[in-house]
Parts: sequence; C-alpha cells; structure tokens
Amino acid sequence: MKPRLGILLSGRGSNFEAIAQNVLSGNLDCEIGFVFSNKPNAPGLARAREFGLPCGSIPSAGIERTLFDSQVADLLIDHGVNWVCLAGYMRFLSGQFVSQFSNRILNIHPSLLPAFPGLDAQYQALTHGVKITGCTVHFVNEDLDSGPILLQSAVPVLDNDTVESLSARILVEEHRIYSEAIAWMLRGNYRIEGRRVIQT
Amino acid sequence: MKPRLGILLSGRGSNFEAIAQNVLSGNLDCEIGFVFSNKPNAPGLARAREFGLPCGSIPSAGIERTLFDSQVADLLIDHGVNWVCLAGYMRFLSGQFVSQFSNRILNIHPSLLPAFPGLDAQYQALTHGVKITGCTVHFVNEDLDSGPILLQSAVPVLDNDTVESLSARILVEEHRIYSEAIAWMLRGNYRIEGRRVIQT
Repeated sequence: MKPRLGILLSGRGSNFEAIAQNVLSGNLDCEIGFVFSNKPNAPGLARAREFGLPCGSIPSAGIERTLFDSQVADLLIDHGVNWVCLAGYMRFLSGQFVSQFSNRILNIHPSLLPAFPGLDAQYQALTHGVKITGCTVHFVNEDLDSGPILLQSAVPVLDNDTVESLSARILVEEHRIYSEAIAWMLRGNYRIEGRRVIQT
Repeated sequence: MKPRLGILLSGRGSNFEAIAQNVLSGNLDCEIGFVFSNKPNAPGLARAREFGLPCGSIPSAGIERTLFDSQVADLLIDHGVNWVCLAGYMRFLSGQFVSQFSNRILNIHPSLLPAFPGLDAQYQALTHGVKITGCTVHFVNEDLDSGPILLQSAVPVLDNDTVESLSARILVEEHRIYSEAIAWMLRGNYRIEGRRVIQT
C-alpha cells in the first residue's frame, strides 16, 4: 500500500497544490489521504475538491487545542494517513498530535531557518537587509519552526524587491524542495543525528 | 590620494592576506595603510611584515577598552587610514571607535547572519543541522555581528562535513566577497536605508 499524506492548510495552500500535482503526475509515489483545514472557506479546500481529494474542515473556534488536535488526528488516521505535511497551517500543533505522528510531520518555512522564524518571514528578511534568504523543509516538533531540517534552498534578495516579489521568488523554490523532501522521506534513506538529518 | 585600509586582526588573518593580494595585484584600487593586531605574535602580523606593510601591535592586557581603542584609532589615523577592515579581530570595538570610523568599518562573519552570530559559527551551523550556511560582510556597529549587510554568499553543508571541511569551503567565499564588498564601498555607489545597503 502506498504511503498516504495528510495535508493541513489554512489558506490557499499553494504548496499543497504543488504536492498534489506531483502526486497526480506520478513524480511522488504516494497518495493524498486527506486535506484538512481549520478554515472551512480556505481556498485550498476548494482546490482539493476540484482535484477530487477527500477533504474537510473542523472550525477551531471555541475548541480546546488538545481536543481539536485529537479530532484532526482521528480524521487523518480514519483516512489511512501516515505522513502529515503542513502547507500554510496557521496553528501550533499540540504535543500529543506531534507524538502521534512522531518524525512524520513536515513543514515548509519561507526563510533559511533558524533565521526569521514565525510570521512574515519575507518581510523580516527584507527589513533585516539580508542579501540571501530562502526556504526550509523541516520536521515539526512542539516548538515554532525549529525541528530538524531536511532541505533548504537559497534565494537572492534584490535591491528593488518588495515583500511580494521576494515571496514569489521564494515560492518557486518552496514548491520544488517540498516535494523533493517528501520523496526523500518516503524512500526512507535518512537518519536523524541530534538535529541533523543525514542521507543513508 | 587612494583610500587607505586599516586591517585589524588577532590571528592568522587569512582574509587580510586575500585583501592584500588583491591590493598588490591591482584588483583593489586602494592601499593598506596599517595592519594592527592586539596580539604581538599573531601570524597575520608576520605576513604583513613579509608583504612590507606598515604594521604593529599594542597588547591589550590590563588596558581599559576605551583607552585601548583610542590608541588603536590614533595609530590608524596617523597612518592615514580612512577605512577599517576586521579580519578575525577578536575584540568588541568601543562606541567611540565605531563613531570615529562611522559606516567605514567592515567585518566578515562565517555564517549567513543573522543566523549563528558570535564564536564558532561553523560549529553552530553544523550542530543546528542547516543544509545551507555561508558568510556575510557587514558594517560594524556596537552590537555583535549585527550591522547592515553588504554582501552574503551561500555555501552548502554536506552530510560528511566536519567543522574543518565546512570552514574551508566557507573561507573560499569569504576571500572572494570581502574584497568584492571593499571594492563596492570604495566606489561609493551605495546608500544605507534602515538596515538595507542598496546599490545606487
């Protein structure tokens, strides 16, 4: 049976779409088991429906985090999901959720972590005046943007960049390395040494 | 009259040597006015003597920092220095020194700042498990490794890297971008906007 990805998103989920296209074209040897959003109106959910993928949402308002996350985990497990990919999922994951999918949750962040964690990473990079930024695929742990790093790609910052132009340039690399990282994980030829993810 | 660089170093000063070779070969249109070390036995000072460059040291032990730095500034100014390049100079500069050479002090750091400031940047990068690190030429202010950034270069981290192999790979880029940044500053076609150094 093929590995089954669960995708968690809160917005348009452009990284989800790039992954989905790689799955459909056979570049990624896996299935998308479920696309979940905490926002019922997330454009990414509409795209999932267009792709004919199983998808759904649970509004998070008023539900305690651990309870909410356990409902999400149940939904994913019911759909046979064994790998979780965050694609613009704007919530912290509870420790219980993280340990349920231990070292099987990936995220992508639009900076060369550990620089510029958190929100508005491209804006942070621009105002800090760096000449190189990029994106990072990493395992998710309970801390923000800080799990072991699988892949990174460097992107130049240009003098006339705006947040929009820089974000667009980084996004091209996000779409490329996220699927590359997923393919690597699914092949299984890696080990984690301390914080380092090493190819075996 | 050509711009005159003052080089401050504490050790072997391999970046000093790369700069000196670019000055001697005419790639950098400036002179080296003085090579200073706080360590009388720094190998970089011996190299400066071999190059026939004006050089000297003041041992820093027991001298209050502001007084020490004002002696260094006097020495540089007496030798007509109007730009200062740090090349492995293991001391913080006093506010007075920084303002005496305001926006005319450069440093190179072996990471993509703001990631991994301070000592042992290559070791920090390795143990953090990043896949990309690099080096940064920046203006020096009173805070550690935090002035406006002129140039950066990205360097891959390999699975089998040691601190030594990674440092050697970064050093190649350090030698390249430090002289490139100096040439840019001496041409004068830049402006500083907030933290951003923009080409004009």
